[in-house]
This record gives sequence, structure tokens and C-alpha cells, in this order.
Amino acid sequence: MADKRTEIVEIGGEFGLIDRIASQFHPQIQSTIKGIGDDTAVMDLGSDYGLLTTDLLVEGIHFDLTFHPLPHLGYKAIAVNISDIAAMNGIPQQVVISLGLSNRFSVEAVDELYKGIRAACDDYRVDLVGGDTTASRSGLIISVSVFGKVAKDKIAYRNTGKPNDILCVTGDLGGAYMGMQILAREKQVYLADPNMQPDFNGKEYILQRQLKPLARMDVVYELEEAGVVPTSMIDVSDGLSSELHHICRQSKTGAVVFEDTLPIDEQTALVATELNIGPITAAVNGGEDYELLFTIKQEDHAKLKNNPNITFIGYLTGDSGEILLRTKSGNVVPMKAQGWQHLSS
Amino acid sequence: MADKRTEIVEIGGEFGLIDRIASQFHPQIQSTIKGIGDDTAVMDLGSDYGLLTTDLLVEGIHFDLTFHPLPHLGYKAIAVNISDIAAMNGIPQQVVISLGLSNRFSVEAVDELYKGIRAACDDYRVDLVGGDTTASRSGLIISVSVFGKVAKDKIAYRNTGKPNDILCVTGDLGGAYMGMQILAREKQVYLADPNMQPDFNGKEYILQRQLKPLARMDVVYELEEAGVVPTSMIDVSDGLSSELHHICRQSKTGAVVFEDTLPIDEQTALVATELNIGPITAAVNGGEDYELLFTIKQEDHAKLKNNPNITFIGYLTGDSGEILLRTKSGNVVPMKAQGWQHLSS
Repeated sequence: MADKRTEIVEIGGEFGLIDRIASQFHPQIQSTIKGIGDDTAVMDLGSDYGLLTTDLLVEGIHFDLTFHPLPHLGYKAIAVNISDIAAMNGIPQQVVISLGLSNRFSVEAVDELYKGIRAACDDYRVDLVGGDTTASRSGLIISVSVFGKVAKDKIAYRNTGKPNDILCVTGDLGGAYMGMQILAREKQVYLADPNMQPDFNGKEYILQRQLKPLARMDVVYELEEAGVVPTSMIDVSDGLSSELHHICRQSKTGAVVFEDTLPIDEQTALVATELNIGPITAAVNGGEDYELLFTIKQEDHAKLKNNPNITFIGYLTGDSGEILLRTKSGNVVPMKAQGWQHLSS
Repeated sequence: MADKRTEIVEIGGEFGLIDRIASQFHPQIQSTIKGIGDDTAVMDLGSDYGLLTTDLLVEGIHFDLTFHPLPHLGYKAIAVNISDIAAMNGIPQQVVISLGLSNRFSVEAVDELYKGIRAACDDYRVDLVGGDTTASRSGLIISVSVFGKVAKDKIAYRNTGKPNDILCVTGDLGGAYMGMQILAREKQVYLADPNMQPDFNGKEYILQRQLKPLARMDVVYELEEAGVVPTSMIDVSDGLSSELHHICRQSKTGAVVFEDTLPIDEQTALVATELNIGPITAAVNGGEDYELLFTIKQEDHAKLKNNPNITFIGYLTGDSGEILLRTKSGNVVPMKAQGWQHLSS
């Protein structure tokens, strides 16, 4: 290794590292349409575009097997990658999975994991077509790659939003974050007294949001039926604010979000209040909801206004980089992009 | 986890686990041509086939940073996946990489790794188009997936060899295995006395074979130029014997290999003798050479006989599963498939 030592955190952590890598690699071959910088890579297949995405999940960083049941984890590993394909307005096709297994994993444990993987493959109509299994000295490692397709005139990038486009989000926000808070709390209770039963009553929805999130392929199909192609799209893995900053930075726009439109489930709001967290904070900065954040042309508003899965939360502006939250009281405040840290934070 | 506990080794280790998973997943969607069971998955793209492969490399299992320079490791991580695309007679196109990094890795170390990744991307004319970086609690994790293409009438599977087809192998065999033996020996010397300089003189070739193997894309292009499509093909990652067993099992054939034809480099033979290992044992059972093992029709022999990269080592027979080695002395012995274990063995 070189003499000088720069910590990865000094260059901005994961995002800084990705920017650094992206600056060193530029597509050279003709079939590459889009390299690093969107939810998936894009390849020219002739009549369609191909999409390729990959994610690495590491025990102790992305999940904690104390509270993550293996079938749910298997499901989640697939769903979070399908979500990236959905964020390009694409249809997932094939998936490959590599597993690193330490020797505390039995055949039965691997079967449990694959039970969830199979359920996700069935739900999203994708084929598991390959992978790799290997030993690991440090718990469970799951690497998933998904290949998908999209018609060339249907693809939705991050960098193609325009001022006055309407900002839309699917489902509701902040639930996965509150689910994680509850799991962390109950783990502390359990560690203090293993005889205590965890208190998950009335929290089923937010726990499911954290442990077994769904990819919004349903909305991708609904957009197709409604004849709407988003002008830009991204999935909400690191929190609304962080994702909106990606869209605005790449589209060279600003945005205004109306606080009172943000979709927040009742359980999310209740638990947030119980834990002294503002529900809006959870909705704006909480990650791992895997909803879709997208923009549409004004003229497409009527085509989607009756869709119960979609909420209109604001619009893009020409003020590049200025991302504002209009509060219920009528104030306008900058919406900061707090980088979402997964479990390890 | 379930009550019963079966160790993975009880069902035959990695290969047993892959068989178990494969038996639970059957392609459902139309565009899947080939799922688990070949060097890559195969997808119908319309005019061509798409190829998708993935590999997971874990520190302490697949590599040892005591002797693996980071640029070489980056190169190897790409090359071993390109080798899988080559083994389908395909052309690699795009690659995605995920890294898990423990906090002992600095920005400079990551740069070193990407130096090798970039060199491999240049050599094999592929674009790095995405990936993921994350923390890791246990050293370096590298997951690579490669997408490639092949004309539908050029694809080479494992299961399509026929009796009397000629068995061919590229390059030479056993070098990577002997390289690993030398590295392991010098590491012991170093651990015993850190002031000792490692003795790598005259062993450069076999060390390169282990530390920076090449994918045989050159031979894929030469086959194309010669107008030869292999009747079956696989890459030699787990050793000649193991790979030949895969071809014969899947093609329902037997095989005869002539010991005196096996291509063995002089350094491999010298070091094998020095370490009291039979050169033939190294060539037959040593893994990680990443050469191509393939079969051709008899009538194609003339088209390849002057190619210095290709050696004819035997032929397929109709005796399903009977894989024989004809020794220099004229004896015929069964060639056993010793499962190759990587570094961890």
C-alpha cells in the first residue's frame, strides 16, 4: 500500500468513493448507454435497453440476524435490487446471487434464506439463474445482481427532470426507519433481560416495512397502463431528502416539497411520537422505504390523480440545487440531505 | 432456524449446495434460456444471447493480502469472471463491482485495487458501469458480475459434447497451483523470520499464473477467425479433472486423456519436482489456471492444429461417466475429480 494514508471518511464516505471511482471510468464500448450514476447501468440490446444493478449486503452492516428472520432477509435482498430496476421504469428478468457463509450456517438456515428468495422471485416474476457460494470468516454475505429490460422510449433516468414537473412519491415514507428504531429498542431490552418478550403489538406494519420491504413494480405497471412515462425517477433507499437531492443535482433543477402532503402511515406517526422523533423527520430522512420518487409532466397529472398508490408532494423548479420544504405553517426551509446510514449507524 | 442442523459439508459442500438450490429453482420466464448449471446464465435478447455471471471473492478464503498485491487482485477479480464469459464462447461487455471494505482500507488502497480493475477492463474491452461500496467488519469482499453477448449459433454449453469429439485445452496447466504452493511456503518462511527475503527467482511465471491470471479471450477470437464453434466448453477454475467431469456428466459421455499430451510449463514442472509433487498431479488437479477446456468436431482439427495456444489432449467417448487417463507407460487409469479448494484448504 502507498505511503500516504487517507481515510475513506475524509473523501466523503461511500458517496465520495463512488464519485472518485466514477471519475476514473468512462464508458468505451458502444453498447454502454449509461455507466455509474443512476439506479442501474443501461445497455443497448438492439430493440430494448438492458438494465444491470448489483447490491452487497453484509451481516452486521446491513442486517442483524438477532431480529431479521432469514426468509425475510432473502426476500429483502431480492426486493431492494428489483427496486433499482423499477426506478428505471424497467421490468426485471433474471437474478444471480452469491452467498458467503460462515460455518455457523447450516443447510436448514440456507434453506430458510432461499425460501424468502424464492418468494421474491415468484412475486416479481424473475428467474434465479446463477450465482456462487463460498465460505466466509465473518458471517453472512449476500450479493445480488439483477438484469432487466425497458423499452427505449420508456426509460426513466435521474437527470431528465424539468422545472415545473410534478414531484410524486409512491406509498408512504418513514415506516422502515421507525421499524428499525423499534427493533433496536427491543434488542436492548432483550440483551438486558433475555426473558422479556419483545413488544411488537400494533407495530406490525412498520416492522414489515423494515424487515420485508416491497419493490413498487405494481406502480411501474400502473404507469404503463396510464400511459405515463416519468420524466425522472429514483427509488427511496437513502431517504426522500437524499434522493431528491440526487434528482435535482443530476437534472440541474431545484424543488419545492409541501410538508402537509407527505404520505405518512398512522403507525409511523404514532411510534415516531412515542420515541420523540418528528414524523416529518422520519419521512424526510428515514431510509429503506424502497418507494419510488419520480416526476411527471403537468399534463400527465390527470392520468394519475386517482391512483391511490401515488401522492403529489411538490414540483421541480429552475433554481438549481435549491431544495425547499414548505411547512404547514407556511414557512419555507431548506431540506437538508442527511446521508442515510444503514444499520451500522 | 429449524431444529435439525445439517452441516453444509454433509451435503457435499459448495457443489452439493448449488445442486440443492438448482433443484428448487426452475426458469419460469420466456427470456431465460439457461439457468444454474453452466459457466454463465443465458438470456434471449432477440438477435443475440445475453450472458450473466457473478463471483464472490472473500479475503482469507480466496486471497491473502500478505502476498496478493492489490492491483493484481483487482485484475484477477475481473479476469476470472471474463473467463466464464469466454467459456460460453461469448464477448464480455459490461461489469459491475461491489466492494466491502473494513476500516483498515485507505483511499490509497482502494485506488490500488481499482488500478488493476481498470487494467483488466482495458485489456478485455469491458466497461465498468456500476456497483456498490459498503463497510465490512471482516476485511475485503469483492463481488463482480459481468454481462456479455454471443451470437445464437456460436454459444458453447457444457452439455453438448459428443463421443469422438476432440478434447482441447488452451495454454498450460498446473502453474497457478504451483504458484500458490510457493507463496504459501514463502509466507511460512516470512512468518518465522520477517527479515528473510522471499525467494521468487525463476518462479515469476507460476506466480503470475496465481496472482494475475488471464482470461483466454484471445482464443475465443481465434476460434471465431478459424470458423470453429466448440461443441462444448468450460473454463479451468477448479482443475482439469474436475472440469472434464462436468463436461462428461452434463454431456453424458466419457473421455480419454493422454498424459503425455498435457501442456505443462517448464517452471511448473521444475517447482513441482522441487516440492515433491508430480507435475501431472499439478496439471490434472491444480485449479485457478483459467484456461479453456473444450471439444471440437473431428473435422475441425485441421483448422486449429497450427494454433500454438491450443493443445489436443484426448477425446470424448460413449462410455458415460468413464474418464480415463492413458499414462506414458501405456496404462489406463481412472481420472478422479478431486474438488479443488481455493486458498482456504
